[in-house]
Amino acid sequence: MTMDEFDYIRWLRQRTPPHPRVVVGPGDDCAVLRPSSAPLLVKTDMLLANSHFILEQAGPRRVGRKALAVNLSDIAAMGGRPVAAVVSVGLPRHGAQHLAEELYLGMRELADEFDTAIVGGDTNTWDGGLVVSVALVGDAGPQGPILRSGAQPGDWLFVTGPLGGSIQGKHLDFTPRVREALQLQEHAQIHAMLDISDGLAADVNHICAESGCGAVLVAERIPVTQAARQMRDGRSPLEHALGDGEDFELAFTVAPEDGRRLLAKQPIPGLTLAWIGDCCAESGLYLEENGQRRPLPPLGYVHQFA
Amino acid sequence: MTMDEFDYIRWLRQRTPPHPRVVVGPGDDCAVLRPSSAPLLVKTDMLLANSHFILEQAGPRRVGRKALAVNLSDIAAMGGRPVAAVVSVGLPRHGAQHLAEELYLGMRELADEFDTAIVGGDTNTWDGGLVVSVALVGDAGPQGPILRSGAQPGDWLFVTGPLGGSIQGKHLDFTPRVREALQLQEHAQIHAMLDISDGLAADVNHICAESGCGAVLVAERIPVTQAARQMRDGRSPLEHALGDGEDFELAFTVAPEDGRRLLAKQPIPGLTLAWIGDCCAESGLYLEENGQRRPLPPLGYVHQFA
Repeated sequence: MTMDEFDYIRWLRQRTPPHPRVVVGPGDDCAVLRPSSAPLLVKTDMLLANSHFILEQAGPRRVGRKALAVNLSDIAAMGGRPVAAVVSVGLPRHGAQHLAEELYLGMRELADEFDTAIVGGDTNTWDGGLVVSVALVGDAGPQGPILRSGAQPGDWLFVTGPLGGSIQGKHLDFTPRVREALQLQEHAQIHAMLDISDGLAADVNHICAESGCGAVLVAERIPVTQAARQMRDGRSPLEHALGDGEDFELAFTVAPEDGRRLLAKQPIPGLTLAWIGDCCAESGLYLEENGQRRPLPPLGYVHQFA
Repeated sequence: MTMDEFDYIRWLRQRTPPHPRVVVGPGDDCAVLRPSSAPLLVKTDMLLANSHFILEQAGPRRVGRKALAVNLSDIAAMGGRPVAAVVSVGLPRHGAQHLAEELYLGMRELADEFDTAIVGGDTNTWDGGLVVSVALVGDAGPQGPILRSGAQPGDWLFVTGPLGGSIQGKHLDFTPRVREALQLQEHAQIHAMLDISDGLAADVNHICAESGCGAVLVAERIPVTQAARQMRDGRSPLEHALGDGEDFELAFTVAPEDGRRLLAKQPIPGLTLAWIGDCCAESGLYLEENGQRRPLPPLGYVHQFA
């Protein structure tokens, strides 16, 4: 049996549940959403074969899941609520139909979990490798869009979970911290937030650069995953936690009084908020280890253009 | 000189003019747009090397332009106003920086022409060919979202310009009919509309399928481009006009009294609206040529999944 793009759209439509914000889903020139009075969040992320995943290792369903998850994580990083996604794919010709269906089913599972409609897309076959691009729109949350630029000297810096070694599996199977970011806003005024995708040091550096401040991280307080501890590549667990990236935990800053309350109450079910350092007026990124402070290079993965 | 993705984001930010709807542009986890009370239109389209363009022939600037233009055309097809785009690219490693800049400049030109903000994206290098995915959000226009499903038996079917042979150049250089679709709404109640991307016959068939009606096209009334007349591949100019696709003209239906007025007034500056046929209650697509009616297969390009 072969299927063309119109069969695929029919197949998608049958599997698209109704959603309170969706007026028109897949199949017209554009999807149509009911407007909201909240500021609109917009994000896109693209996953490319052999760069973000190995198809044979991950399988198409986990690739589909990740393609949506990385975008959900960015909505979480703004403290927002996801609403609807559109999905573009470039499929290698061999096995394209199976790939398309599995990608969709991987997304569907996560979309249902996060009340996110999949409202359209563009499905193509080509001679290249698998590429999946998701764009996601969402509503800002109760504190409005939480930017990278709101950190203030003296703020306490938190992360929502242990870091490092995500290549062992978490980079595919992580749960985007959408619910947690909304819960946090009930307990503290979040000054700045992002999701850790480039690596803790690089991402804290982004907060500092955008906020015009510096930060001191305390090595002993940085939570490290079991996966990072088990890696045997000559880099320490701490180096993995600082530099690996794709952790998709949130890093955020709050005023000290809010920080103290968060530490004492630990109000988020299922996770332990870790106070990993403080923002300072002096620019730059520093690591304090055994009571010694040294500059910390903003390690992390960066796409270099040749 | 080499540039990394953060240099590129800085370069983009310097070239991003302010826009009344944009609260936060490129550089944070998500872009933030001011909400509107109009229904929100969302669309994505992906262009893939050697499938939608030949990079060496088109050049990266025209590829960037087209990547945005095809999405603008879909907003036009809903009768809407574009607001903001996000752009994901997968760049071959060789010459990636030049490619990234040229793609952006090609989009920028069209974005300025259509008051569309470019608010973010995801820039990657990989071992594959060039892939560009744009997602666009817009506001519905004065008549609300104009769907494919609103055609009624008896409606007159129009196109906004001559068709066929777009492969000769128009598929890259067309101007999306955003302004024209808005102007049309001042002069007629549009029942159904889409942009001709798959080919006239296939696209009219989409309107019929969604509206639960049929259509009769009149061969002598279908406007054909010079490019289609000059092609020497054994297919007639009419066959090119019916089947080529990527014309990016609009096809729409109106009640006969509105159709008569449009024909008499020709109210859209710079183009001639062509009445090419009628919708009918009987399902199916038909072509009338020299007074003879025959079934018309919904020709057009369809991505087949193996």
